[in-house]
Amino acid sequence: MNLILLDGSECCDGRIRMTGRRAVHAISVLRVAPGRQVRVGLIDGPMGVATVTRVESESVEMECRFAEAAPAPARIHLLLAMPRPKVLKRLWAALAAMGVGRVWIVNAARVERNYFDTHVLEPGFIRERLCEGLEQAVDTRVPVVSIHRRLKAAVEDELDAAFPAPCIRLAAEPGAAPSIHRALGPADPKAQVLLAVGPEGGWVEYERGLLRAHGFQPVSLGPRILRSDTACLVALGLVQESLRDAPPHPPAGALSRG
Amino acid sequence: MNLILLDGSECCDGRIRMTGRRAVHAISVLRVAPGRQVRVGLIDGPMGVATVTRVESESVEMECRFAEAAPAPARIHLLLAMPRPKVLKRLWAALAAMGVGRVWIVNAARVERNYFDTHVLEPGFIRERLCEGLEQAVDTRVPVVSIHRRLKAAVEDELDAAFPAPCIRLAAEPGAAPSIHRALGPADPKAQVLLAVGPEGGWVEYERGLLRAHGFQPVSLGPRILRSDTACLVALGLVQESLRDAPPHPPAGALSRG
Repeated sequence: MNLILLDGSECCDGRIRMTGRRAVHAISVLRVAPGRQVRVGLIDGPMGVATVTRVESESVEMECRFAEAAPAPARIHLLLAMPRPKVLKRLWAALAAMGVGRVWIVNAARVERNYFDTHVLEPGFIRERLCEGLEQAVDTRVPVVSIHRRLKAAVEDELDAAFPAPCIRLAAEPGAAPSIHRALGPADPKAQVLLAVGPEGGWVEYERGLLRAHGFQPVSLGPRILRSDTACLVALGLVQESLRDAPPHPPAGALSRG
Repeated sequence: MNLILLDGSECCDGRIRMTGRRAVHAISVLRVAPGRQVRVGLIDGPMGVATVTRVESESVEMECRFAEAAPAPARIHLLLAMPRPKVLKRLWAALAAMGVGRVWIVNAARVERNYFDTHVLEPGFIRERLCEGLEQAVDTRVPVVSIHRRLKAAVEDELDAAFPAPCIRLAAEPGAAPSIHRALGPADPKAQVLLAVGPEGGWVEYERGLLRAHGFQPVSLGPRILRSDTACLVALGLVQESLRDAPPHPPAGALSRG
């Protein structure tokens, strides 16, 4: 926990008395004592520093100052075919740590139907895991998660409103497509990216066609078949680096034009 | 399981009778029947196709032909400060899936001493998890894992022999270092890369100095603090893409020279 996340409602006048998970962590891992300062952040809001004023066996009181602006909104979003619940369970925190803005969990032909009957899709469970990821990565923006049981309807009827232009749409596929770095090229530094990651076994042909018809450009993570959690993290890392690196190179072909 | 991994010793004349985990998977997930073909690979050897000849309640017999060459040796290696056992436990398969060649698990100042007292460092446990990753990613080369309880001795006395030149050494750090893509630039397409990933909390100053003195160039994964498993996968993905992409762009500065 590199940041203690607080909810606006529990933090009146900048004072807070924490109990539960966060207090236990502050006491037993951070070993806080009165006078000690810790990093804090308001959920979906600014970050700052809190001074511990009192420590009891199961509670910690602090005075917070939120002097830093809220982190910039995320520019990377994920459309993810529902993975095995065991895999998704561990993925939530990592997605938040990676700085994903919106997560659409979607159905697909190769998703087993019973995958959706799981507590790892319950909002309370998701939120707790996402907050853990933010506390790790020092961010306050909670990813916005939605569940879409009908892929076709979601893509045809809801996608454009949720991810308005300019938003580059990429679909990770094993095989011979261009790399993410090449596909993004010297992207508009303000562009958003929506990344689609399929189920174990991949999208079926119809789904691939649906995604292409809605502007998803195939990109490859290389020849290895990765589990969907690994594929997500690797692909998000590649998108992030492409967006972060002000591209030092001209787009493919530009050299010959110059 | 996209590939069934077999050991040379169990596969005489190309015939094999599988029991245990692989047989259960073949029967209940792949739903094999006589005549069905499945992908197989010999550990550290070639890949090919097997034809199922007999299925019983807990065993599967097959005839294998290994007509494909063994995968090329890995070019990416990892020097990883011992993570929390719970984290490492899940990381083994992903590291194998990502195609890591050698994994050095090392001690560091910020590694808790009791982390080393764990079954997730037992060779049998490690090998089983690594094979799962290879079966996922369709590879037969088992990563070579070693445990180094004294970082200084390992780096000073053993590193050069284990990772001879040309081997680019990178150390992932949070903060302002160049990205992996920039650091690798248009790397020798045959270069090996050794990537160092520190413990939760990072390397201490002495360790950073030790790594730099031994040729590790700092690279950044961006401003977010990632858990070491996420950091490993993201960094490995970035190295892999940089090595895979024949670089379409000149190194920084080359344009002005032209």
